Amino acid sequence: MSEAPSITAAILVIGDEILSGRTKDKNIGTIADHLFGLGIDLREVRVVPDVAAAIIAALNALRHSYTYVFTTGGIGPTHDDITADCVAEAFGVELREDPAAIALLLERIKPEDLNAARRRMARIPVGASLIENSVSKAPGFMLGNVIVMAGVPSIMTAMLQAVTPRLQTGALLHTVNINVDDLPEGAYATALGAVAARHAAVSIGSYPSLVDGRFRNQIVLRCRDQAALDAAATDVGAMMAQLAAKH
Amino acid sequence: MSEAPSITAAILVIGDEILSGRTKDKNIGTIADHLFGLGIDLREVRVVPDVAAAIIAALNALRHSYTYVFTTGGIGPTHDDITADCVAEAFGVELREDPAAIALLLERIKPEDLNAARRRMARIPVGASLIENSVSKAPGFMLGNVIVMAGVPSIMTAMLQAVTPRLQTGALLHTVNINVDDLPEGAYATALGAVAARHAAVSIGSYPSLVDGRFRNQIVLRCRDQAALDAAATDVGAMMAQLAAKH
Repeated sequence: MSEAPSITAAILVIGDEILSGRTKDKNIGTIADHLFGLGIDLREVRVVPDVAAAIIAALNALRHSYTYVFTTGGIGPTHDDITADCVAEAFGVELREDPAAIALLLERIKPEDLNAARRRMARIPVGASLIENSVSKAPGFMLGNVIVMAGVPSIMTAMLQAVTPRLQTGALLHTVNINVDDLPEGAYATALGAVAARHAAVSIGSYPSLVDGRFRNQIVLRCRDQAALDAAATDVGAMMAQLAAKH
Repeated sequence: MSEAPSITAAILVIGDEILSGRTKDKNIGTIADHLFGLGIDLREVRVVPDVAAAIIAALNALRHSYTYVFTTGGIGPTHDDITADCVAEAFGVELREDPAAIALLLERIKPEDLNAARRRMARIPVGASLIENSVSKAPGFMLGNVIVMAGVPSIMTAMLQAVTPRLQTGALLHTVNINVDDLPEGAYATALGAVAARHAAVSIGSYPSLVDGRFRNQIVLRCRDQAALDAAATDVGAMMAQLAAKH
């Protein structure tokens, strides 16, 4: 089956606070949902600490492997906010105070309050374009294929919306979910594996969850080709009916 | 300051369902909290899809970089559960049906229901030790420095508890949290940076959150040396008092 080249992405979460457990990340799920809706395949996530060498190494690994890299965190005014520095260093470009970013900051901050720390938030790698922050003004930016966003979830979400029109999107992945409440995974796994082998173009996963001590399972089928998806879903349905009749 | 060598860890989350947004991960936060309480430094997290090459590459990168690697997901009975295969391949050992694992499965599954798919859950890399699963019996395992756990949160948590006595633990990281409700980050960032520079042994972070459209910040100080931590916290307190007096 010939297919358009897929648009791929990675997320790089930057922050000691996630790794220490202090903050429970919510951005990964939000970005994953958003990219899924754009037909962009999220292929990898990494979480790294506020350590320049770790951030730069992850940035360089990811930006050369995927269409886009979305970073969250580390663009505030304090000494531990070093994401812009790291992106500039990873790309080998200068980090400079950007007059347009200063203008955005001044929409929220009085001129007499625009101190050195706040000016840090206007330091943008040369060649980057700003990403609007409708919540608190201090902008994110996009440099090459790297999209740099805040860590505060509501601000991250605003930036994600703002940058979306600039992204190349892919064909939507169609999905069929089949809930299986009455059969354990072990009872259908072999048959499902055989169906999956017959429909190699369709991604088929089985996801158990425990509800009140009982497993409930969901079989999820995904494919960009609706006809192929329908054929696989029909096959899974027939297989489940056959198994249910036996039980 | 001389210190005991730190005990480090990474988490490898395995699963298409996290990357597609279908499932919102809860295990990272649980493991992060648990490791923090053991004095083990979580240094990196990666999320990869159910693709053998991606899993094996991440396993090999992480297991050579940190004291421990905790994996979640991909150890059920279905065709998309390939974590055990990947761990065996990464270590270059055989994957064999383990009689002890079969015995554990038989505590929950009737002998006549122990089909080929369920037997998949008893395939354990040679040299690994089993990790008890008090919730649904199918065990995890530990091979070298890699700890392989289920993805279902309640089962993952049971396995994390079960494996804990086998882990080398580190000195506890002491923490001081200072809530700052009345000053924006930009008002104290420069002064905080100066304090941080004077207390290089103490990790100092500033974390904003937006509550009803207003920023609330928390300054978090962390150090294994209580005296060094107290000195830095005193310094931050004095700095904040001075700033508050000015405002």
